[in-house]
Amino acid sequence: VAKRLEKFKTTIFTQMSMLAIKHGAINLGQGFPNFDGPVFVKEAAIQAMNAGKNQYARGFGVPELNSAIAERFLKDSGLQVDPDKEVTVTSGCTEAIASTILGLINPGDEVILFAPFYDSYEATLSMAGANVKAITLRAPDFAVPLEELKAAVSKNTKAIMINTPHNPTGKMFTREELEFIATLCKENDVLLFSDEVYDKLAFEADHISMASIPGMYERTVTMNSLGKTFSLTGWKIGWAIAPPHLTWGLRQAHSFLTFATCTPMQAAAAAALRAPDSYYEELKRDYSAKKAILLEGLEAAGFIVYPSSGTYFIMVDHTPFGFNNDIEFCEYLIREVGVAAIPPSVFYLNPEEGKNLVRFTFCKDKDTLRGAVERMKTRL
Amino acid sequence: VAKRLEKFKTTIFTQMSMLAIKHGAINLGQGFPNFDGPVFVKEAAIQAMNAGKNQYARGFGVPELNSAIAERFLKDSGLQVDPDKEVTVTSGCTEAIASTILGLINPGDEVILFAPFYDSYEATLSMAGANVKAITLRAPDFAVPLEELKAAVSKNTKAIMINTPHNPTGKMFTREELEFIATLCKENDVLLFSDEVYDKLAFEADHISMASIPGMYERTVTMNSLGKTFSLTGWKIGWAIAPPHLTWGLRQAHSFLTFATCTPMQAAAAAALRAPDSYYEELKRDYSAKKAILLEGLEAAGFIVYPSSGTYFIMVDHTPFGFNNDIEFCEYLIREVGVAAIPPSVFYLNPEEGKNLVRFTFCKDKDTLRGAVERMKTRL
Ligand SMILES: CSCCC(=O)C(=O)O
Ligand SMILES: CSCCC(=O)C(=O)O
Repeated sequence: VAKRLEKFKTTIFTQMSMLAIKHGAINLGQGFPNFDGPVFVKEAAIQAMNAGKNQYARGFGVPELNSAIAERFLKDSGLQVDPDKEVTVTSGCTEAIASTILGLINPGDEVILFAPFYDSYEATLSMAGANVKAITLRAPDFAVPLEELKAAVSKNTKAIMINTPHNPTGKMFTREELEFIATLCKENDVLLFSDEVYDKLAFEADHISMASIPGMYERTVTMNSLGKTFSLTGWKIGWAIAPPHLTWGLRQAHSFLTFATCTPMQAAAAAALRAPDSYYEELKRDYSAKKAILLEGLEAAGFIVYPSSGTYFIMVDHTPFGFNNDIEFCEYLIREVGVAAIPPSVFYLNPEEGKNLVRFTFCKDKDTLRGAVERMKTRL
Repeated sequence: VAKRLEKFKTTIFTQMSMLAIKHGAINLGQGFPNFDGPVFVKEAAIQAMNAGKNQYARGFGVPELNSAIAERFLKDSGLQVDPDKEVTVTSGCTEAIASTILGLINPGDEVILFAPFYDSYEATLSMAGANVKAITLRAPDFAVPLEELKAAVSKNTKAIMINTPHNPTGKMFTREELEFIATLCKENDVLLFSDEVYDKLAFEADHISMASIPGMYERTVTMNSLGKTFSLTGWKIGWAIAPPHLTWGLRQAHSFLTFATCTPMQAAAAAALRAPDSYYEELKRDYSAKKAILLEGLEAAGFIVYPSSGTYFIMVDHTPFGFNNDIEFCEYLIREVGVAAIPPSVFYLNPEEGKNLVRFTFCKDKDTLRGAVERMKTRL
């Protein structure tokens, strides 16, 4: 394995999902729904395939999807973007992240992350040869430590990367925090990479796109995907929205990482994004009910539960159960309790910081959630 | 744009396809069929979607596809591989190439290519910080200059990358050439990356997989895809087959470039790969007829035509028409003749070496080919 990837292991999602299968555990670990995506989206994919839309798409996306993404962005963030010059379709948000980082970051550039962070951020930054600094968001509210962040920005800082709503904590960046970060970016000529894949799963507050903060669009790459919002995580349709000069860089990486994304699924994604508002309202209503089941269960089982305002994750502290760390706890949970979760220590530069934490997902049908809750209440 | 990508432009395929659309030219440039893939494969995708196979696949591939790939490799190359430990499904062969190079090549490693080469090889090697050496295959037969290759291998050589059948020349590496390269690899402890996406389009000779040369499997990554063989270039299903220690490296890169590939399309790909031999025979018969139309037309139009034994490409020399270089010729061809082709100079480290050449594809229906031929015969 090349040095740039030496320190990384099999992703924790794969490790835990494999272990869950082996022990027949209910999987509240990796964030994929155990229910299906909407029929109208699948119908659109079938129609596209039957209409012969099966050859290479335009590298940066089929025109109808680029347009649908631009329309949704206008509706959600109030920003008008050129679908052909500022929108790039990628093979999942993971590829949008890789393309952005490999396309825009040079060896030695400093990039600031907020820990805990999605594992691919650190890995792709390592592939780009970046120096990674991490600012830790701490329980119970995972607020941004503003002064610490300000002190971390140096003349070598090339970019700050955020994720809101935030995986794995469920935290949503407040307007105050976004504005503070925006000011730092503008004052220090820093780029902003914003992963917003959970934007439609904002329960307690409205989602705010960093790009909509005045003066930020021109230095921001906004990333999103179809998977979470349409319960089609396996389709791997993502995108990046950025001004032309940043789009150029990320498209160059995208061209050589995958070249283009699955054509018929892009056609279907365009149909999905044009869903009426009622689709998104229903989605949120349904997830609120699921969340309530898990929340009640985790509290009743004895965890210290931290508030989650967005995403389909809840972060808890397992200290009351007396384990040494999150890995040990999660292994016990799978083997003895029959429930899989994610140990978050891998999402920190310093794993110690995550050792008391565990992440659960509620993107499962209600019976599954009830079953898992029942096991935790009785066996933990 | 990051320095690692600075020297690259919009891919020539995109440039030429866009220009073809603008001028209403018949597109014999980018290699995508203008006819549809087989119904039974599309049916399998629809079945998978309707059966709810729409969530994240296992990162390295859905089990049934990994097995189907291993079975096909056994049948084609006589090599038995472990589907779970030696096969990795990727988002097209382009991603297999990127994962292999970013997962296994360190900055400063020397990698030898044969020019002309597919453009993503050089770009991803640049992303990995490799030093690229190119050995030029020269018309009319594009034979490997054995002594030149031998002299190019040094103690810094980490890998040699081949492509057989070869895009853009249609050359197939002979057994003698493969054995010569294999000996060099074994004597100098060099890896071998083999892109074999056109293996089923071998017209004049049998395709030979480098991995099947004795002693080579353990140091070879074999890459392939669904797109060319099943006329579904837009589905973006590719794979890499390699011994476990090389698979580990390329999977680490794959995990963070895309994580996983579109689930329902993987299920369909498994069905495709289990097609009876008659499917492949019919495919070859059909392409032979298409090739004959284009070949006759290029000769009648006045090109110097070089023999193509595999792929769906034919390389020609445009010197008889008196243009300065391939770009100028291709622009004239699109604008004034109404036919698009690919100027190959971008596939050389030294563009001068490709300036007399032009690549045409015959992956189009017969009427389209006849139409293009007619235009070239009358307007050139
Ligand atoms: C790409 S697997 C991880 C899925 C996910 O987003 C999560 O569980 O955090
Ligand atoms: C990925 S676009 C290029 C298609 C192709 O393989 C070719 O035309 O050479």
